[in-house]
Amino acid sequence: MITAGIVGGTGYTGVELLRLLAAHPGVSIRVITSRGQAGQRVDAIFPNLRGVLDLAFSEPDPDALGECDVVFFATPNGTAMEMAPALIARGARVIDLGADFRIRDLAVWSQWYGMDHACPDLAAEAVYGLPERHRDAIRTARLVANPGCYPTAVQLGLLPLLEAGAVDTRHVVADAKSGASGAGRQPRQHTLLCEAAENFHAYGAAGHRHLPEIRQGLEDAAGGPVGLTFVPHLLPMIRGIHATLYAPLLDPAIDLQALYESRYADEPFVDVLPPGSHPETRTVRGGNMVRIALHRPVDSNMALVLAVEDNLVKGAAGQAIQNMNLMLGLDETLGLAHTAVLP
Amino acid sequence: MITAGIVGGTGYTGVELLRLLAAHPGVSIRVITSRGQAGQRVDAIFPNLRGVLDLAFSEPDPDALGECDVVFFATPNGTAMEMAPALIARGARVIDLGADFRIRDLAVWSQWYGMDHACPDLAAEAVYGLPERHRDAIRTARLVANPGCYPTAVQLGLLPLLEAGAVDTRHVVADAKSGASGAGRQPRQHTLLCEAAENFHAYGAAGHRHLPEIRQGLEDAAGGPVGLTFVPHLLPMIRGIHATLYAPLLDPAIDLQALYESRYADEPFVDVLPPGSHPETRTVRGGNMVRIALHRPVDSNMALVLAVEDNLVKGAAGQAIQNMNLMLGLDETLGLAHTAVLP
Amino acid sequence: MITAGIVGGTGYTGVELLRLLAAHPGVSIRVITSRGQAGQRVDAIFPNLRGVLDLAFSEPDPDALGECDVVFFATPNGTAMEMAPALIARGARVIDLGADFRIRDLAVWSQWYGMDHACPDLAAEAVYGLPERHRDAIRTARLVANPGCYPTAVQLGLLPLLEAGAVDTRHVVADAKSGASGAGRQPRQHTLLCEAAENFHAYGAAGHRHLPEIRQGLEDAAGGPVGLTFVPHLLPMIRGIHATLYAPLLDPAIDLQALYESRYADEPFVDVLPPGSHPETRTVRGGNMVRIALHRPVDSNMALVLAVEDNLVKGAAGQAIQNMNLMLGLDETLGLAHTAVLP
Amino acid sequence: MITAGIVGGTGYTGVELLRLLAAHPGVSIRVITSRGQAGQRVDAIFPNLRGVLDLAFSEPDPDALGECDVVFFATPNGTAMEMAPALIARGARVIDLGADFRIRDLAVWSQWYGMDHACPDLAAEAVYGLPERHRDAIRTARLVANPGCYPTAVQLGLLPLLEAGAVDTRHVVADAKSGASGAGRQPRQHTLLCEAAENFHAYGAAGHRHLPEIRQGLEDAAGGPVGLTFVPHLLPMIRGIHATLYAPLLDPAIDLQALYESRYADEPFVDVLPPGSHPETRTVRGGNMVRIALHRPVDSNMALVLAVEDNLVKGAAGQAIQNMNLMLGLDETLGLAHTAVLP
Repeated sequence: MITAGIVGGTGYTGVELLRLLAAHPGVSIRVITSRGQAGQRVDAIFPNLRGVLDLAFSEPDPDALGECDVVFFATPNGTAMEMAPALIARGARVIDLGADFRIRDLAVWSQWYGMDHACPDLAAEAVYGLPERHRDAIRTARLVANPGCYPTAVQLGLLPLLEAGAVDTRHVVADAKSGASGAGRQPRQHTLLCEAAENFHAYGAAGHRHLPEIRQGLEDAAGGPVGLTFVPHLLPMIRGIHATLYAPLLDPAIDLQALYESRYADEPFVDVLPPGSHPETRTVRGGNMVRIALHRPVDSNMALVLAVEDNLVKGAAGQAIQNMNLMLGLDETLGLAHTAVLP
Repeated sequence: MITAGIVGGTGYTGVELLRLLAAHPGVSIRVITSRGQAGQRVDAIFPNLRGVLDLAFSEPDPDALGECDVVFFATPNGTAMEMAPALIARGARVIDLGADFRIRDLAVWSQWYGMDHACPDLAAEAVYGLPERHRDAIRTARLVANPGCYPTAVQLGLLPLLEAGAVDTRHVVADAKSGASGAGRQPRQHTLLCEAAENFHAYGAAGHRHLPEIRQGLEDAAGGPVGLTFVPHLLPMIRGIHATLYAPLLDPAIDLQALYESRYADEPFVDVLPPGSHPETRTVRGGNMVRIALHRPVDSNMALVLAVEDNLVKGAAGQAIQNMNLMLGLDETLGLAHTAVLP
Repeated sequence: MITAGIVGGTGYTGVELLRLLAAHPGVSIRVITSRGQAGQRVDAIFPNLRGVLDLAFSEPDPDALGECDVVFFATPNGTAMEMAPALIARGARVIDLGADFRIRDLAVWSQWYGMDHACPDLAAEAVYGLPERHRDAIRTARLVANPGCYPTAVQLGLLPLLEAGAVDTRHVVADAKSGASGAGRQPRQHTLLCEAAENFHAYGAAGHRHLPEIRQGLEDAAGGPVGLTFVPHLLPMIRGIHATLYAPLLDPAIDLQALYESRYADEPFVDVLPPGSHPETRTVRGGNMVRIALHRPVDSNMALVLAVEDNLVKGAAGQAIQNMNLMLGLDETLGLAHTAVLP
Repeated sequence: MITAGIVGGTGYTGVELLRLLAAHPGVSIRVITSRGQAGQRVDAIFPNLRGVLDLAFSEPDPDALGECDVVFFATPNGTAMEMAPALIARGARVIDLGADFRIRDLAVWSQWYGMDHACPDLAAEAVYGLPERHRDAIRTARLVANPGCYPTAVQLGLLPLLEAGAVDTRHVVADAKSGASGAGRQPRQHTLLCEAAENFHAYGAAGHRHLPEIRQGLEDAAGGPVGLTFVPHLLPMIRGIHATLYAPLLDPAIDLQALYESRYADEPFVDVLPPGSHPETRTVRGGNMVRIALHRPVDSNMALVLAVEDNLVKGAAGQAIQNMNLMLGLDETLGLAHTAVLP
């Protein structure tokens, strides 16, 4: 039985890790930390876990965490880079669900996250945890940078086109929409029900922290610069990301459906829908799947890609467990076969 | 007092016309028809109108309608073109909130709407009711084709760029999102609360009926072809359209804010927000306003335009009343000063 | 033109006062205060008011406020009782939308609100602003205690039964449900969209601050003790209160419909629906109306009363303006004829 | 491996059966029928089941169904009583998720359901499938009448009080609220998102079909007549029932918490929350649990019981599988350990 620790278990990513790990047949949760809630039972805060998880939050303790086989960080940006070195030194594998290790160019990282990096060496060693691109490196990694929610959907939606060199990379548009759980569980005015329900708007239109992360991944795949416009929007719902992706085709005769079906034929968590489909976010709610559909809009040379995921699962906790399975030699899909609850 | 008739008053566009006209100081509603509900009081179906409107639905009768100064058609496509000629012959002005008279090229119209046009002569005479483009022609029109909901938001969002020749018209993207009221009040499975709430998806990705209407307007403004990709999405909410518009700039040094403020300086129902804004659909809910914000995404040559409207007001009933005011010589803003209910 | 001031204008009750007063034909808003937002334009925070209200928030200043004909307090409990005496001394009428002056028995008040009362004399003078019970006293009041949102719906729903002595007052149940706007605009975890949407629960089941206020009003009407069980619930929506009221009938032969129609025949803001109706909260959204339906459940001696209101209008800002109209000699309905936006 | 058939698999109860049975380790789904969708793959209609269920809908065929160990009816009322006799004759166990076999008094049944009963003998044999009351009889039953959604929540909420003779049974009130999925997947106007979202209302206030079913169960438990007022309401959300239950206590000194904890100590799917709790519907979303809290409102002799369930799981498909487990000798909880997805 693999032993797991979670640092920062009171946010939405944390409770989703708890839900998934508590049902994972190969994992035992040993430690879950929270400075604010230390001493309190987990199921007092999250009653859905009553009868499922018999643990209390504790103060973060490197020794207790370091004894775990794997430690997940579900913390604000800047926390994991402070604590991870000590845990890795004690032999634990680390998966950071925050942004501390996602961007290779630390100057770019500092510019977008507003702080200096605490451990450049580890940052250089970290593997970007998108299994569909870096599966082999993940298997042997000590430290995995779990991708952001938007970056997962946008990259999986565009990778086949870019790897195949099929599009004009100067004019790529990613119009992305996310449920409010992406904004976290900290009380903030703009995510109150009375502000976010029956309402819709863009945010971060001039530039969002996920832009450099997405561009890094797309440029790796394309082997060159990608002119990307990325605009996130806030959906009046809880879970789900929908990425609507536009890229001008170089060869209008390309068979998009075949390209994507071939690229993702062996991927357990990428589902290419039949031609003419419009993926719905609810079909992946609570599950680790990304569903993708391809379209060729009438009178247009655009490739149109529609991609959906649950931002808290494939966009966060589920992908982290997928990475854990790879790092620790388990079946990649273990504990991740949840069917979306529909309706 | 102007007398008004409404054909087809039981849908969402119809009840919105009733709400707005009942409070309009210069209009008296004389006739409201519905084949299905004839004989029933309006406020039995729409209790929000109790005490406000003392009318019952009646069978459509050309004589009774023809005596009105203005007749609104809030009917399925294909109805207005059958009945409008008789009403215009009797001297009534006609405003069609459906699509029968929106597209000048009737071959294109037939292709998208799947029927032959019943009155090509009237179609040629009809004026497209977007006051911000055709105000003078509307004033003297006998028949106005009220624009579609998406076309209103997308055209108002892009007109200044196209009129100024400021963008590469080959790669224009309109990523549009609408509340479910745009799909109407007829019971259909995909707009049940259990299907549409906590869910988000695109639809009509391969081609939507509003595409030729939008392109016609954009190409008029641009004076040439426009390569437009238009993708509509269904929002899990009742009212509101958000258009996210992308167009590559020819001259990166252009001052978008000044361009839009100047273009819409005298428009009572177009509000250009301060730089850095993200318009929210709720700020126009129940009102006739379009709010627009301009952005220049980082590391990009794109013009990014964000435009919001209430699809049932500026996207339908409100714009129809704006057109009525113009056609009948009233103040253009009369009866349209509703402040959005927020929250 | 009556001049009005608002103390505490940044909450939901405040912005609703602004929306309604800005459209009121007999009122000019002179002052709107906010310690936190002083200096900022109102329409920067509430963009729905762009073009409607040309004011900035200011620090609360007794002299500026005292010059207004009427001052509304839309403040946390405990604020109005500190500031009201100085304003009344300067000649302003005061309407408190908080709870400072609602309960006559100050010992009870202190027990539920956890503080001593700052001005017992004014508390004794204050008139409870439920026009359907205290219209004449309101006309001449210097200080009106605007009722709470739940108390308005529950009292209007039960008054006819209690005034008529028609029910067994030992077993009255008020099961009440409110949209989240009743919880205010301060960021708190339980009213985040991700916590309150797709969710429903009771709160304050052991005892809620509105209980003593409701009981005071019901006992006045009944002329004796009322055994009331009041349970509030949080609805996954923004606006609206639905009170489901149960009271055992003393005489099963009573004609409830006639009783209510007679009691409210002259009330402009109470609408008794036809027999068999189920009032919907959306039919009063944004308007000052209360709609009531009466039922006699099968095989039961219960009177069942269903009452709906918009908690921010008849439950707060609208009723405050109704009281203002009465206090200042205006038509009681002036500025309050908003039709609910439906859908 | 137990073989299962489902008659009527295209509604919300049907798709929930599919989700739960597809993940059940002891069951293989052999047949799923739908007259309207025969020949179509299940996962074309419910894409959340892609990769999970490799079946197509078929026409209902008694021979194919009769070969299954167990057949679930997720059909409109009146269907199961026509088909069940033939399947039972072939040796299949039958679980009816409709209402055909829930009410013992067939005269009452006919009065509420508007038809004659097709097989009174089977109706007399049927066991009411509430395991917390009838576990032993369910184990040996050939035909189980799966309880309605409201009846499950209301009965489990009140049984301990009634079995203990602790309340005045003349004045019991059940104020119940349900998400819209209880109204089914057939397109109907009142459950459109635009009608049901941002809205709340009661329905069936004069009398609802679940009333006689609930009363039958309560009177069994009480051993005498129960004066029950039951009022259902429609919540603006998808899943979840909240029952707020009021019953006057005969002995105010009773320890409600101890009574309920003792009664449900061995029940795997009834969770009595700690004192002071307010159960939230989301904590049982997608799971088979009922969570209950007890309160003694201030200044009142009422017992107040708050009970939540997922109407599609413990209120329908989950309870049906719980009954199947009992009927076929499996562990009662097998395949039902789903943790609620929160948020």
